[in-house]
Amino acid sequence: MSRVMSVAELTTLVVSVFERHGTSPENARHVAAVVVAAERDGSRSHGLFRMPGYVSTLKSGWVDGRAVSVVKDAAPGLVAVDAANGFAQAALAAGTPLLLEKARSHGIAAIAIRNSHHFAALWPDVEGFAEAGLFALALANTRSRVAPWGAKRKFLGTNPMAFACPRPGREPLVWDQASAMVAHGEILLAAKQGHPLPDHTGLDAKGNPTSDARAILDDGAILPFGGHKGASIAFLVEILAGALTGGNFGYEDRSAAFPGAMTSNAGECVILIDPSRTGGAVDARLAGLFEQLAAAGVERLPGDLRYARRRRSLAEGIAVPDETYETVRRLASG
Amino acid sequence: MSRVMSVAELTTLVVSVFERHGTSPENARHVAAVVVAAERDGSRSHGLFRMPGYVSTLKSGWVDGRAVSVVKDAAPGLVAVDAANGFAQAALAAGTPLLLEKARSHGIAAIAIRNSHHFAALWPDVEGFAEAGLFALALANTRSRVAPWGAKRKFLGTNPMAFACPRPGREPLVWDQASAMVAHGEILLAAKQGHPLPDHTGLDAKGNPTSDARAILDDGAILPFGGHKGASIAFLVEILAGALTGGNFGYEDRSAAFPGAMTSNAGECVILIDPSRTGGAVDARLAGLFEQLAAAGVERLPGDLRYARRRRSLAEGIAVPDETYETVRRLASG
Repeated sequence: MSRVMSVAELTTLVVSVFERHGTSPENARHVAAVVVAAERDGSRSHGLFRMPGYVSTLKSGWVDGRAVSVVKDAAPGLVAVDAANGFAQAALAAGTPLLLEKARSHGIAAIAIRNSHHFAALWPDVEGFAEAGLFALALANTRSRVAPWGAKRKFLGTNPMAFACPRPGREPLVWDQASAMVAHGEILLAAKQGHPLPDHTGLDAKGNPTSDARAILDDGAILPFGGHKGASIAFLVEILAGALTGGNFGYEDRSAAFPGAMTSNAGECVILIDPSRTGGAVDARLAGLFEQLAAAGVERLPGDLRYARRRRSLAEGIAVPDETYETVRRLASG
Repeated sequence: MSRVMSVAELTTLVVSVFERHGTSPENARHVAAVVVAAERDGSRSHGLFRMPGYVSTLKSGWVDGRAVSVVKDAAPGLVAVDAANGFAQAALAAGTPLLLEKARSHGIAAIAIRNSHHFAALWPDVEGFAEAGLFALALANTRSRVAPWGAKRKFLGTNPMAFACPRPGREPLVWDQASAMVAHGEILLAAKQGHPLPDHTGLDAKGNPTSDARAILDDGAILPFGGHKGASIAFLVEILAGALTGGNFGYEDRSAAFPGAMTSNAGECVILIDPSRTGGAVDARLAGLFEQLAAAGVERLPGDLRYARRRRSLAEGIAVPDETYETVRRLASG
């Protein structure tokens, strides 16, 4: 059984959970927006499913719900943000006006966020930029969970990367993918529901291959997608989100001292490029590209399923399972 | 049997081939450098093995060996280069001084090269930037060879991406990988030598899975590495190397009208970031990252095998098989 809720109703509920557990109204608004957006778009592993993790993390003292980001104009093309141990979404929001100004005036710009907690889907961080006509690439690292390049234990984060670009006459093309073979949220869901993962998904604590979610979570590791090539992508994310920003690398995680902490204190980098500045007729060319892609038999692009679910959610409301609703409601009151 | 040649001797030979077939001395120097670098580093699929393809392409009139690139200061952070139907390496060299100046002064900059032919490994395009202390990401698209996101026929290029970053006290970390499961050069080698490819490498002309290199080359397609996630990476390359630059998309290839043409007229994008501008102690943090990576059991990073072979080549010379030598020598005289 489930109940139907509007985006506004669900947002009010989720904001109340964050505020109840020590998040400032401003920060709560930014984090709640991405949780509700995921639930609205059917990305359940990053929606309400994560609320107990947010709350246990806030209760543990690992993340500062009242953090105030410090935005620095680091270079003509770079914005540096110290998220002050707060949520990455609030830090990105704080730096976005300066980032957009730099991208428009210089043609390319990046924001480097450190000391930030990103526990949400990454696509909300790029979709809006593409709606504004820009190409946007976001990279976020996490605590160590992935064994790269033949390593026998976890080292890199699951390290998602998201990309968005305008699609003339439609919503932007947006993809968002973990550099791990399977996202950590999916591993958590599999462990909770007891269903098996694909073969060769990970390693157990001894470095042996396993498809058992619990063995992976118990000091094992997830393997990168696509073998060594996916490991290279995971490493790119670690470098841009960790080294460039001054954020923690995955292996610098100190959350074990905060029981209940589920998030990673790490970094995020978003690169924006203004395609109108290189002199091509980008709109017309992108329109042609997407037409040809459809002609090649690609009926659904990444993100299109989300858009379909979003349209339904906006028209008919979001169906929230009773059990999920009760869990979140209880979090709002205790 | 093979003969041992120095880098200088091999460079003289390769330059003479390019010049013999209508390449200007300046352009010949840039393209020969990457061919010799690949052979020196043991990347044979991008070394002398490619010389007959370069020559047949030059003979076909598809590429202009005498092209003079036009460099434009497109925006404070962007350099746009029209390669004028010439080799991408010459275009990148022409734009590099302005690109470096922008990266240093703005913290981030990109070069967008269009109307260019890239038939070499991509790592030579980033390694030098990392030696200069920068992070460098290069993306180049090619004519259609890869079926993305469930397509039944080729659409995107093999679309390599290369990344380099400084590694304190050592050569830079450099990776360079096709977004295809197997690089086109490897498919050509497999077809020539008759050896089978890994399962699920590609599709035949009817869209059925195959591991036969000849079936893939005969109007079939290569699959992206890592399934839909690799397809996303291939698409990112197509967008940045094609749409951003104004270069041709893979499906816009018109080389069929030029028998013997092996290269793609497409585009390339290189993004540079100066990590010293975001305020972290990047050198020390990178040193720590690479130490920890070794401690996690990663004995060899991407590029390290090339560096080992390079050291041997520089010390002992490059062993060129007699058959290869004769092929290249003949190309130099006719």
